[in-house]
Amino acid sequence: MENALQLLHQRRSIRKFTDQPVSEEQIRSMLSAAMAAPTAHNRQHWQFVVVSQRERLDQLSEVHQYAKMLKQATLCIAVCGDRTQTFWEQDCAAATQNILLAATGLGLGSVWLGIHPKPEAVQNVRRLLAIPEPYVPLCLIAIGHPAEEKPPAERYDEAKVHYEQW
Amino acid sequence: MENALQLLHQRRSIRKFTDQPVSEEQIRSMLSAAMAAPTAHNRQHWQFVVVSQRERLDQLSEVHQYAKMLKQATLCIAVCGDRTQTFWEQDCAAATQNILLAATGLGLGSVWLGIHPKPEAVQNVRRLLAIPEPYVPLCLIAIGHPAEEKPPAERYDEAKVHYEQW
Repeated sequence: MENALQLLHQRRSIRKFTDQPVSEEQIRSMLSAAMAAPTAHNRQHWQFVVVSQRERLDQLSEVHQYAKMLKQATLCIAVCGDRTQTFWEQDCAAATQNILLAATGLGLGSVWLGIHPKPEAVQNVRRLLAIPEPYVPLCLIAIGHPAEEKPPAERYDEAKVHYEQW
Repeated sequence: MENALQLLHQRRSIRKFTDQPVSEEQIRSMLSAAMAAPTAHNRQHWQFVVVSQRERLDQLSEVHQYAKMLKQATLCIAVCGDRTQTFWEQDCAAATQNILLAATGLGLGSVWLGIHPKPEAVQNVRRLLAIPEPYVPLCLIAIGHPAEEKPPAERYDEAKVHYEQW
């Protein structure tokens, strides 16, 4: 199992994609991984919108200035949470991290695009994907077959570690 | 790499631990995994407080009603973020998820204890661990050698998946 830790370092933000589509089986694997993440009191209140139509991906690429790679990505998953749940952002962020890791494990590339708490971005995504209250899109994940390679991340910084007390 | 996806399902919330200590190498592996998580604009503003002294672990077990297993855990990591960063909760949640997964990969058990946004819990942890502003403890992670076993999680629920639009 220790080799499995490599997955955590191999995940990098990939923003260039080929036009090969992501398979239904791969989508299912990523969503299954998402739902294996922990939630406060195991409430699993998350919801996922899976977008693969070219026109809608192009529309999503306009929701904010850092979403341009969605013009190239063949898949986008919007991770949504119920904002009446105290820990909803954290729960959905853990699910998002699992999707990124699953994508990496499947040989796909992915990048996390923050949406909440930017009001305009939330409104844009809500409108395009018809997301009802009290759900909020935490983020979009752009996914596709990678057209760029990056080495594993090694960002360990001892200065950020405190022992017993800060 | 596809086997690496098993890691995501094998991670379960473990609340019973033996008294065998977690090694320095294992602590380093988990923190390295944490810092391999993505952050908005790659700012990596996270900070980690690693607690292994019995007395302090016992004190942390009193910070809220769901933290009792810290009396048994041999290690606790507090994941802290800079609340002036827009996406700080999400960034720290992704790092937390990586710590849980790394623990699983190392054969350790772990459980995520939500702290922020509960004001009293934040204040208790801040005081015990001397965490300065503008940093906030997002959560505590109780870690140890597991004294319980759980089967892999399979929580896939098609009802939570929407295609193209909600």
